[in-house]
Amino acid sequence: MRLLLSSAAIACLSLPLLADPLPSWNATDTKARIISFVDAVTDPDSPDYVRPADRIATFDNDGTLWGEQPVYFQVIYAVDQVARMAEADLSILDSDAMKAAAAGDMAALVATGKEGLVEVVTAAHSGMSVSEFKADVAAWLDTARHPDTGRPYDEMLYQPMLELLRYLRDEGFSTYIVSGGGIDFIRVFSEAAYNIPPNQVVGSSLAGEYKTDGDGPRIMKMPSLFFIDDKEGKPVAINHHIGKRPILAGGNSDGDFQMLEWTTSGDGARLALIVHHTDAEREYAYDRDSHIGGLERGLDEAEARGWLLIDMAADWARVWPE
Amino acid sequence: MRLLLSSAAIACLSLPLLADPLPSWNATDTKARIISFVDAVTDPDSPDYVRPADRIATFDNDGTLWGEQPVYFQVIYAVDQVARMAEADLSILDSDAMKAAAAGDMAALVATGKEGLVEVVTAAHSGMSVSEFKADVAAWLDTARHPDTGRPYDEMLYQPMLELLRYLRDEGFSTYIVSGGGIDFIRVFSEAAYNIPPNQVVGSSLAGEYKTDGDGPRIMKMPSLFFIDDKEGKPVAINHHIGKRPILAGGNSDGDFQMLEWTTSGDGARLALIVHHTDAEREYAYDRDSHIGGLERGLDEAEARGWLLIDMAADWARVWPE
Ligand SMILES: [Ca+2]
Ligand SMILES: [Ca+2]
Repeated sequence: MRLLLSSAAIACLSLPLLADPLPSWNATDTKARIISFVDAVTDPDSPDYVRPADRIATFDNDGTLWGEQPVYFQVIYAVDQVARMAEADLSILDSDAMKAAAAGDMAALVATGKEGLVEVVTAAHSGMSVSEFKADVAAWLDTARHPDTGRPYDEMLYQPMLELLRYLRDEGFSTYIVSGGGIDFIRVFSEAAYNIPPNQVVGSSLAGEYKTDGDGPRIMKMPSLFFIDDKEGKPVAINHHIGKRPILAGGNSDGDFQMLEWTTSGDGARLALIVHHTDAEREYAYDRDSHIGGLERGLDEAEARGWLLIDMAADWARVWPE
Repeated sequence: MRLLLSSAAIACLSLPLLADPLPSWNATDTKARIISFVDAVTDPDSPDYVRPADRIATFDNDGTLWGEQPVYFQVIYAVDQVARMAEADLSILDSDAMKAAAAGDMAALVATGKEGLVEVVTAAHSGMSVSEFKADVAAWLDTARHPDTGRPYDEMLYQPMLELLRYLRDEGFSTYIVSGGGIDFIRVFSEAAYNIPPNQVVGSSLAGEYKTDGDGPRIMKMPSLFFIDDKEGKPVAINHHIGKRPILAGGNSDGDFQMLEWTTSGDGARLALIVHHTDAEREYAYDRDSHIGGLERGLDEAEARGWLLIDMAADWARVWPE
């Protein structure tokens, strides 16, 4: 027993000397700034020291931790789901958005705008219990494949960001997802994909309703929006779920602007990260005019605000996991 | 270093043999059932074993972890706050409920019903930022005293429940508060009082709004209800914040019925606890007809459902902390 503890202690002490915590990041300024921030807030002798309970890090999901092109993966799920629903009941196709979804016509669906997307996602995500919904998403993830890479969607994860999450947790941070995507949807894969448990997933949601008729108690997903976790909604949701202001936040679009602003306007050392999609060869290149993950204000103001732009092409040695 | 680790290891190994984890509980069936449940779900060789990540325990707050008589402490705060607000602006006293609050007439306020209470609490809890609100509650807790005991409100905690929370955490549980009370209010004292961090506090809430005009970004508390975490709302909020079904839940009133039902209708070993206020001498005795913390259906159905009624007078060796 004593031997075991001693070797564990030796491993702890020597780890920082031996291992690069971010092996898939190139040795650029970006990597150096991340490590220097983490060192500053974790060193008890640093003026920027933060106790572990306050080391809160929040990350957007789509385009920050996993891919989002050619369209949000949750929308692809919703479209597949609406097509299956229409097989049973054609009367649900009562709008241009629902018709486009059932036909799998993503361009026509995107053309119906945000309202159309919300309509399709709401239809595909309601009328069942939370546990039925999660089982269905899990089954979909098992078989659906990304149109460009052929990978399962839950393997479209950015390897450098997986390393960053792990590095932060190793340094005493709590890592949260704060996503515009659906909270129940993300919870299906967040634990296996990111090692982030359900209670550390914050997202958009439909209203829930507790029902006891029929087969025992269950929580039904209702066809009305409860909360949109985007833009100004992100700081509000962070307060609601976490109750503390993050000291580090990462995003990739202007939907994350307020989360980064909220994070960096607190006292003490703060770090805001923006994943800038600059890599048309290994992933995608898009920012200002993208129909998904548009990034304009963040690009314009990052430097003046001291926010760190991650240049995917230059800063990442690899994009996808092995 | 090696010596330190060794003595820590010795302390860990011998603790379960030496210490009673619930010293303020009498040696009744109630205590035996709690310990036998915890043993069953934590013993890897037990058929009821639950991995630590799924050891979720949720507790009501008012009347379960701290007192709630003669009226919810948060209502006493709200009444004090409305009286202070009225000093600055008498025009806010535009209803019977607001007038009763400003006059400190609790009986008249209670007579205005739930609507009156919600009106007063909403008025007292909105129009400021979350951090201003929390600072104000903290200052109030420093000076306000309970009318019957003369104690600070955040010392009106039930010592046996503090021991239970600690025991559960020592056994790998995550402990959550799931309260009808306000989430921002409870978070002011939950960490110091219960060792429960803000992200493990679930409660009722007003709408939040992110504002950047004026003195930097802040989250404003708006005068509209966002969520009532009571009755059917408790399982819905548990799903929203935690994303897993608890295996243990504790409450004291019919406002907790659905949380206990949801908890105990899951698979495997489950435990539901109801703190029954039977102790007029050391605390209060109330259940069916109480204006606060009414308990009727829970009393009627506890035995048939296998829920454990905690008889405060018989099961607790002491009520308050030293
Ligand atoms: Ca995004
Ligand atoms: Ca209660």
